[in-house]
Amino acid sequence: MNHTELTVFILAVALLLALARTLGEIARAIKQPAVVGEILAGVILGPTVFGLLAPGVQSAIFPAIGNGAIALQAISSLSIIMFLLVAGMEVDLKVALSHGRASLVISFFGMLVPFVTGFACASVWPVAFGAEPGTDPTAFAMFLGTALSISALPVIAKTLMDLNMYRSDFGMIIISAAVIGDITGWILFAVIIGMIGAAGPEAFDAHTTMVLTVVFGAFLLTVGRKLLDKALPFVQAYTSWPGGALGFAMAGALLCAAFTSWIGVHAIFGAFIFGVALGESRHLQERTRRTLEGFISFIFAPLFFASAGLKVDFAHHFDLTLTTLVIIISTVGKLAGCGISARLTGFSWSESMAIGVGLNARGAMEIVLALLALQFGLIGERMFVALVVMALFTSVIAGGLISRILRRDAPARLIDFVNGGAFIAELTSDDPREAIVELSAVAARAAGLPAEAIADAVWRREKMMPTGLGKGVATPHARIPGLKTPVVAVGLSREGVEFDSPDGAPAQVVFLTLTPADKMTTQVELLSDIAKNFINDSIRQRAIQSKNFAEFLSVLKTGGD
Amino acid sequence: MNHTELTVFILAVALLLALARTLGEIARAIKQPAVVGEILAGVILGPTVFGLLAPGVQSAIFPAIGNGAIALQAISSLSIIMFLLVAGMEVDLKVALSHGRASLVISFFGMLVPFVTGFACASVWPVAFGAEPGTDPTAFAMFLGTALSISALPVIAKTLMDLNMYRSDFGMIIISAAVIGDITGWILFAVIIGMIGAAGPEAFDAHTTMVLTVVFGAFLLTVGRKLLDKALPFVQAYTSWPGGALGFAMAGALLCAAFTSWIGVHAIFGAFIFGVALGESRHLQERTRRTLEGFISFIFAPLFFASAGLKVDFAHHFDLTLTTLVIIISTVGKLAGCGISARLTGFSWSESMAIGVGLNARGAMEIVLALLALQFGLIGERMFVALVVMALFTSVIAGGLISRILRRDAPARLIDFVNGGAFIAELTSDDPREAIVELSAVAARAAGLPAEAIADAVWRREKMMPTGLGKGVATPHARIPGLKTPVVAVGLSREGVEFDSPDGAPAQVVFLTLTPADKMTTQVELLSDIAKNFINDSIRQRAIQSKNFAEFLSVLKTGGD
Repeated sequence: MNHTELTVFILAVALLLALARTLGEIARAIKQPAVVGEILAGVILGPTVFGLLAPGVQSAIFPAIGNGAIALQAISSLSIIMFLLVAGMEVDLKVALSHGRASLVISFFGMLVPFVTGFACASVWPVAFGAEPGTDPTAFAMFLGTALSISALPVIAKTLMDLNMYRSDFGMIIISAAVIGDITGWILFAVIIGMIGAAGPEAFDAHTTMVLTVVFGAFLLTVGRKLLDKALPFVQAYTSWPGGALGFAMAGALLCAAFTSWIGVHAIFGAFIFGVALGESRHLQERTRRTLEGFISFIFAPLFFASAGLKVDFAHHFDLTLTTLVIIISTVGKLAGCGISARLTGFSWSESMAIGVGLNARGAMEIVLALLALQFGLIGERMFVALVVMALFTSVIAGGLISRILRRDAPARLIDFVNGGAFIAELTSDDPREAIVELSAVAARAAGLPAEAIADAVWRREKMMPTGLGKGVATPHARIPGLKTPVVAVGLSREGVEFDSPDGAPAQVVFLTLTPADKMTTQVELLSDIAKNFINDSIRQRAIQSKNFAEFLSVLKTGGD
Repeated sequence: MNHTELTVFILAVALLLALARTLGEIARAIKQPAVVGEILAGVILGPTVFGLLAPGVQSAIFPAIGNGAIALQAISSLSIIMFLLVAGMEVDLKVALSHGRASLVISFFGMLVPFVTGFACASVWPVAFGAEPGTDPTAFAMFLGTALSISALPVIAKTLMDLNMYRSDFGMIIISAAVIGDITGWILFAVIIGMIGAAGPEAFDAHTTMVLTVVFGAFLLTVGRKLLDKALPFVQAYTSWPGGALGFAMAGALLCAAFTSWIGVHAIFGAFIFGVALGESRHLQERTRRTLEGFISFIFAPLFFASAGLKVDFAHHFDLTLTTLVIIISTVGKLAGCGISARLTGFSWSESMAIGVGLNARGAMEIVLALLALQFGLIGERMFVALVVMALFTSVIAGGLISRILRRDAPARLIDFVNGGAFIAELTSDDPREAIVELSAVAARAAGLPAEAIADAVWRREKMMPTGLGKGVATPHARIPGLKTPVVAVGLSREGVEFDSPDGAPAQVVFLTLTPADKMTTQVELLSDIAKNFINDSIRQRAIQSKNFAEFLSVLKTGGD
């Protein structure tokens, strides 16, 4: 690359990352998976939007051929290998095995029904389902079956964590089923790639590829796993920390990726299986895991998914009939397979439906699969767009539906109910009654209720028993009839307000906490969340220094780090 | 890239990373900067060694032209941009400014003398100093001056930390001088790149480039710095943590890199200045910094430096005369400039020499500069090799010489004196006397002294006052005449040994600590390091679970994480 090409390449990566992160955050803010925003960033920067508005500029910055295109391909290839390493590390084999029967049954039927549905549809109506002319019909049918039968482990795990159900038996069975499905799905896909000989003429024949794939996977998950568990303490003991472990993980994933690529399946299969094996080691430190996950989930994954959005003109290749068909058969197949098998293993109907909806989320994995199939010529642009839309759609509905079906709300957290309109950077009075009046005024505005009534209610409660927690924190509070959603007003006071705390220290951070009168548990949840956060000296010190609401919220967010 | 090219590319990255990390660790183990091993990895995998042994295979895996070469260039370009982001974040402007006069004087003369020397030599004897035919002689002379005058901030910082002198006034003045020198050096280099019009014909003229460079730098370090400090709390408050801050840092660095590349100086200048500005924000959290540093220093930096070693046949282009000349004039110029100015600002002669030797380390920055100059055609392979060797040579001698000149030893740390030969995974007895005998046996073997005398000395000391620290840790110890270097034998006991600790808990981890009789402070340093480490519950718990020495050492290394 010459200087100009290099400049453009850096600009392209910068734009992809910046927009993917921004839209990813917006997606999270409206409680959607980040991948939705990341794909959208690619759609906007790609031929669909930017290319429509300024085709010359777009193809100059994101060229489809030439040196710039190869450079972008290099980055997105490494990004997806790293993403699969982390995805593999999230898999917990022990959990999957310990919930044996139920998750095996659910994952088996949860995959079998959509697989058979997809396989049958693609075999009977190949053209309607977007088979490209010249594709091996069996491989295409197997691909569609596989594409419909996988689940999105990260989306499911995130949803369950949000609902505080990840560690429950119910949660663990869903996760186990997803894990088993994940591994099976990738092995199936590896076999399909071997079948179509996508690795080129000098590669192994399909039979050898399949045998090598199974041998590689079986070896790494048994002997390899044990070897990694033995090797990791040595790496940590005798190399620099945390660099030694990070380099070990990355180099291992890349070597396995190169190996599986060489035997004719995709590189990411090697990285994924290596991640599963490495993630099992009890010697893997939390810091190594967090560093890899942080960097990869927030830098490389956005780059990959945004570049996936670049590949195709989504508007031009959007086929409503095909997309609807794909959504319907994938959802019906998954709900039927998972729901019925879950019911048969003893779950209630509503739990069974929640399991089905959860495992119906296709998320990022489906998009990886679809992009690879597109690159290998197994599917065309129409089917690619349909699969991406299906993946996003099923993921978006999963979170909301599960919590509605199970009627579970996540416990109330302080961070969700503070807001800039109810924040006072410096309380004017050191008298508790007046501090409550001051905070009630802003809280009332945020709640749309009369300030005086609120101040009275809180003060009545305060007189019954002082709410100073000690260590400079006070939590005056009241349950307010007619309030729809909790409001927490925050006031800081360098001088301190006398809230009669057990340790005698005046309160420097005052949380006026209002909760709806009809929700009994919300108040306790919020007060305990406040206590849990502010028992940490560093958080409290930094919070008191905040000059504005953003700084205060930043302290709450970044927590104990 | 087709499937085969992609496979080879992944393999190339995997090999570069694996070997660079391995040799980097070996370099650290023998107390040298990691960059020495990383460059060596490239030299081994490049034309110099691998290419000599198997030229066909070497050029197939690491092609110099074609798609594979472009893919590798894309990775190494992004790697060096990220490395400069982290290098910039390490710079502490406040420190540099607060030690104003002395560091300004030292850095000014410390740069001026080598710059003038290099400029003069290159002007008078351009050919002897490896000027390529057709190079602008002024630009070449300026480049050589700049190349000789920079210092390696990371090497210096690491050396001072190892000597426990980083936070001392002495250390801070060296660091400040290096920071000022760093920034000046990069601005000079930016100007040189502008002068030779390396950015190609469609770029700005040299004058515009220089003005834009200075304006960009000045803006980012003043207004930009304040804006970043304001923006960071918002990013942390309103986006996911730590992903928001990570993405913000990376996207910002890439955008600045693209901008400086566009105005005609190299991309890395933008990333560096952005790093300096961002690193100044007091809102930047330790976790963000650590995640970026961990990933970039241990994944991207090794990849970059190894790929720098790939570029050139080091054996073929090694010119002993030129290399010696470069080492002599760079070292003499730096020692004279820094040493004399340090003496004049009030340091002793030995301190002044230590400052000169420290700032003489060129380290990674010199290699970055040399590689860019090579790519821009400003220097040839001979000079590139000479500069790389000079950079490695000056860095290697800096650490050892500083501590020798100042006669300072780093405080003794537990981790340096435990070893696999003096580790007992399960003590056989629960009696302190017998545990001491058992541990003395292995300690004596490691020390090459009679076991009985050691056991007696430790037991005599133990009877005077029991060494149980409480929380299951005991530290029997003695100063042993004739011992050259400390020995710490470690014994674990699931049942516990009765060491009469204040809390009555039997000791599950026993450190038998032997120190030379003539070193008064070593014993205290080691005992306090043991206490400091093992006060942490999680470390203690994990240590007790260790099944072998590697697991135990891994726990010590990975510490509280």
